[in-house]
Amino acid sequence: MILNNNEIETLETRYRANLINSLGGFKSLVLVGSKNKNGISNLAPFSSLFHLGAHPALCGLIFRPKTETSSTLQNIIDTNYFTINQVNPTIYKQAHQCSAKYSIGISEFSEVQLNEENYEDVNAPFVKESIIKWACEFVQKIEIEINGTTILIGKIIKIIAPDYFIKSDGFIDIEEAQTVTCSGLDSYHTTQKLARLSYAKVGKPVFEI
Amino acid sequence: MILNNNEIETLETRYRANLINSLGGFKSLVLVGSKNKNGISNLAPFSSLFHLGAHPALCGLIFRPKTETSSTLQNIIDTNYFTINQVNPTIYKQAHQCSAKYSIGISEFSEVQLNEENYEDVNAPFVKESIIKWACEFVQKIEIEINGTTILIGKIIKIIAPDYFIKSDGFIDIEEAQTVTCSGLDSYHTTQKLARLSYAKVGKPVFEI
Repeated sequence: MILNNNEIETLETRYRANLINSLGGFKSLVLVGSKNKNGISNLAPFSSLFHLGAHPALCGLIFRPKTETSSTLQNIIDTNYFTINQVNPTIYKQAHQCSAKYSIGISEFSEVQLNEENYEDVNAPFVKESIIKWACEFVQKIEIEINGTTILIGKIIKIIAPDYFIKSDGFIDIEEAQTVTCSGLDSYHTTQKLARLSYAKVGKPVFEI
Repeated sequence: MILNNNEIETLETRYRANLINSLGGFKSLVLVGSKNKNGISNLAPFSSLFHLGAHPALCGLIFRPKTETSSTLQNIIDTNYFTINQVNPTIYKQAHQCSAKYSIGISEFSEVQLNEENYEDVNAPFVKESIIKWACEFVQKIEIEINGTTILIGKIIKIIAPDYFIKSDGFIDIEEAQTVTCSGLDSYHTTQKLARLSYAKVGKPVFEI
């Protein structure tokens, strides 16, 4: 199938949403934890996380205009903090359920039966059942005029991961930790390693490390 | 292991790069095709692709400051077009090799022995060996002051995917198409589906679809 611009623009809405969301390949699936000004916790699944830099350690998230995730965005602006929690097969259905439109003031943690893990220096809840997780401080938000989305940038200020999964060069074996990936809007997958490859140099074949 | 802000900032550079790049979970791996003003092709692997919206169909890419990928950024600004090509196990080592620092004016296609696929309405080369691929028009670039990176936004104007992998609701089964995902800076993985889950609603259990 080859679709051109006009054909893409005239696709049925739900069909287009599924199609365009599948194009981007496999995506990171994380649960974002935050608290509102009254201290009520919020937990929402995101597949739009991206790496922005290692020094300073930065990441980004995309927020859709006026959606169930907007309480997360407001919480982060209000409190300055959020957590990012990788998802494993034991909790992926609960993670998915967190995308339901719960009323403001209802904590998804209790609704889907996940447990909070809190630290004094981070005003946002971690997911206890998540194996690899980290906290961010709010850095910047960028409004994208063309479609009303918001890009939020956070600085990584705390990392929690079992030593067992961290290799001597800093690589975390997230496959060993059973981290789940997603595709499209609703498809969840585990992974099987092909290889780690050596740093690529001109004129030298890459080898498995 | 728990690392706090000061400890993260004082990690050895390479260790920190591996660690922070692993945190984000599994990432989309794509080859970005472009041409310079003289018509010479360029091909570069990216793991920072993100979905920005389905209507209009938009995506984003992160460019690091002053790196081997900057010729891709310059090409897109100069020509207005780029292609995004999903990677499969047959070509993932060639995709990785495209990250080597080839001189400007050298086409990675010929260096790593991948074939170009060209269309009249897109001034950028697709990868023939890629199964699911699409073209974008340049929309906007955003400079991120905190670390000198650039966010580039593109509009999806052509989609190429075999009918066989496209389900009736528009979902593309990219696992069936053997699309590869990556983690950290150099680790490549295939996937195994857990399930597709129904649209989440308050008070209703999700089910597999």
